[in-house]
Amino acid sequence: MNPSFSSLGMRLQPPAIATLMNAALETPGVLSLAAGFTDSATLPVAEVGAAVVALAQRRGLPHHLQYGLNQGRPMLRELLAARTRQLDGGAPSQVAAEATIIGNGSQQLLYLAMQVLCDPGDIVLVERPTYFVFFEMLAGMGVRAVSLPVQADGTLDIAGIEVRLAELRASGDASRIKAVYVMSYFGNPSARSRTAGEKAALARVLAANDLLVPVLEDAAYRDLWFERPWPAPSVFAQPEWQAFPRMYLGTLTKPFATGLKTGYAHVSDASWLQRLLWLKGHHDFGSANFNQAVLETVLAGGDFDRHLGKLRVTYATKMKALSAALEEAGLRRLGWRWEEPAGGLYLWLEGPAGVDTAAGGSLWKACLAAGVLYVPGGLCLSDVPGARFARLSFGVLAPEALREAARRFAQGAAAIAPA
Amino acid sequence: MNPSFSSLGMRLQPPAIATLMNAALETPGVLSLAAGFTDSATLPVAEVGAAVVALAQRRGLPHHLQYGLNQGRPMLRELLAARTRQLDGGAPSQVAAEATIIGNGSQQLLYLAMQVLCDPGDIVLVERPTYFVFFEMLAGMGVRAVSLPVQADGTLDIAGIEVRLAELRASGDASRIKAVYVMSYFGNPSARSRTAGEKAALARVLAANDLLVPVLEDAAYRDLWFERPWPAPSVFAQPEWQAFPRMYLGTLTKPFATGLKTGYAHVSDASWLQRLLWLKGHHDFGSANFNQAVLETVLAGGDFDRHLGKLRVTYATKMKALSAALEEAGLRRLGWRWEEPAGGLYLWLEGPAGVDTAAGGSLWKACLAAGVLYVPGGLCLSDVPGARFARLSFGVLAPEALREAARRFAQGAAAIAPA
Repeated sequence: MNPSFSSLGMRLQPPAIATLMNAALETPGVLSLAAGFTDSATLPVAEVGAAVVALAQRRGLPHHLQYGLNQGRPMLRELLAARTRQLDGGAPSQVAAEATIIGNGSQQLLYLAMQVLCDPGDIVLVERPTYFVFFEMLAGMGVRAVSLPVQADGTLDIAGIEVRLAELRASGDASRIKAVYVMSYFGNPSARSRTAGEKAALARVLAANDLLVPVLEDAAYRDLWFERPWPAPSVFAQPEWQAFPRMYLGTLTKPFATGLKTGYAHVSDASWLQRLLWLKGHHDFGSANFNQAVLETVLAGGDFDRHLGKLRVTYATKMKALSAALEEAGLRRLGWRWEEPAGGLYLWLEGPAGVDTAAGGSLWKACLAAGVLYVPGGLCLSDVPGARFARLSFGVLAPEALREAARRFAQGAAAIAPA
Repeated sequence: MNPSFSSLGMRLQPPAIATLMNAALETPGVLSLAAGFTDSATLPVAEVGAAVVALAQRRGLPHHLQYGLNQGRPMLRELLAARTRQLDGGAPSQVAAEATIIGNGSQQLLYLAMQVLCDPGDIVLVERPTYFVFFEMLAGMGVRAVSLPVQADGTLDIAGIEVRLAELRASGDASRIKAVYVMSYFGNPSARSRTAGEKAALARVLAANDLLVPVLEDAAYRDLWFERPWPAPSVFAQPEWQAFPRMYLGTLTKPFATGLKTGYAHVSDASWLQRLLWLKGHHDFGSANFNQAVLETVLAGGDFDRHLGKLRVTYATKMKALSAALEEAGLRRLGWRWEEPAGGLYLWLEGPAGVDTAAGGSLWKACLAAGVLYVPGGLCLSDVPGARFARLSFGVLAPEALREAARRFAQGAAAIAPA
């Protein structure tokens, strides 16, 4: 006999990534530019080993192998708060250890935040494009994602946003807007960052529309710059956001070792943080203390930043390898466009008019036949068409494999190009 | 400006444990018999270190530091399924790697299970007493816990359960019953186990009442026996449960190192498992792969079981130290009763008529004055009075500290005893 499921249980759908992974499994020898994994060759084996040894040699009982606090290790939270304040240029801000919470990746903290803010039928404002797993999370909760208009170059279209908000007011939906979600540092999938001016303008247009709703700034890729950090301060340090409840989400594992799966959030509002903590107590009453102790050790000792320095060179090199190989294979001549990003793990490609990048569509089939996978752009655009876009990840494959994957992608694109 | 919270967000309450911890913080020198932590002196520092070294020395890329699968490592799931089948005496059962999911402790899997099964207003049947954090989780979800009657000796009162189910049918509530939750191996807080006969009788009375609802068997303490494993098979191996959707929850970390925070569940129903996996994809798309790799290594190499052998001696010794010291301090003469458990981490004490164990009540205050903390029994009994009970944990304190804590508890009990 099958169980009877809850409303949430009934709403759940298979993840888009399952379709992509099944395609990969059924296609021997396929190269994946789809997976959002990180570089395996540079994983910090020695650094993690040294941290485990250092923890074992500490005086006293080995508390790093015992349960920790629900909120996370105090010293780790101190280190993280100091790090964010430093990234924000030392501007006075409320980023503090007491206002920081550690999670099973920043994803869990995003989930907790949505649970305490949104009921079914509510609305979250998102960017175009944005993190596609976030759409799936919202859909599971019965929450609607409404995207903010952008200009042709991808910058926020403040006048368009004003119009969109007026429409939501007119339809009576404005009161259902419960949060704004932005990835303003080398975001997934576009690798785009937002300028301080764009962010400030967004804050002003929201405030002008009486939408002082919580803003969630997902900075998962902020550490992964290639040449220099993105200069815009976070929503914690920008004066225009001070009246908004703010959550800043970061991760320690994409810039170090994803296997350790540890993220964090700074939260500006005490009542929000308290509810997040109470709910985390129900989920798991604290993320693995051992992983936090390892990360605390490598952060405090400098191994984290030394490793990150190497990783930046690795990803910059891989990005250039992928981009150059796409260019050499003639993809631009086929009408495809992309910018080389200044950080992150992705190239965001715009195809020529008429291209259909959807899973199962013409490009998808041609690419599978050529032996390469990508993420269809439509997955990252909930309420506007995305069929011209594709996300290519350079995180996993080695440079030579990236070049071969690029040739295959161009081969797929050529196969469907009008004669 | 404060955020506006969801219905769930508004329902959340501070955890009971916060009250206990605050009392501890405000009372210097207090000894805690309340915390459900494990023994810190025996934590497996060398075993974890050896596993990390072994993983680092493997050929090929260090995939243990990379993202893993949402469902968990295949080899770890194989090892866990084989382990449960062995504990169940090799009886044919559906416990398989493909039907196993790894989580951030078994707590997360319990949360996921409740999310996909229960809407606000639904009912979950629980034991008297049961795991108090589960009550808080259900309350957060707006779900009601209804407890199953027991006899004076704590065994299930099948006739009483029949009456309770008839009442729920009469009130129209029976259709809201969405699950049954049992801790049948050295459970929290009573350290009681259920016989095969009791479990079979429970299955029969549920089936006879058309309640073939999902059963969740929480076996978090099953590995922590003192002299011998508890002989009753799990709900996966008992024929009486075969028509029910079943989830068996276990943990790898209470019997090894809680800092690694890794639990697992076997799930009998494919549609249920699928929804759990989809939802876990939203929560965190997979628990830390590194921790799983460490646990897989110590399980496969035997270090896990060697360590567990030592841990059993430690906990048996500590249980006896606490129980003997309570006895020597005269607690039985004050009308208190308890049985020495055959496993687990707790003594479950029943006080004399009229005692009030609640936080802030007379015993609580007398114990705080004497310098000792316990868990009030009422927290573990949702819908029946629990003021005569107290849970004492022997997990954390060393034997000498346990003896001192016992003397203090008896001193508190003596202070409130009628002259």
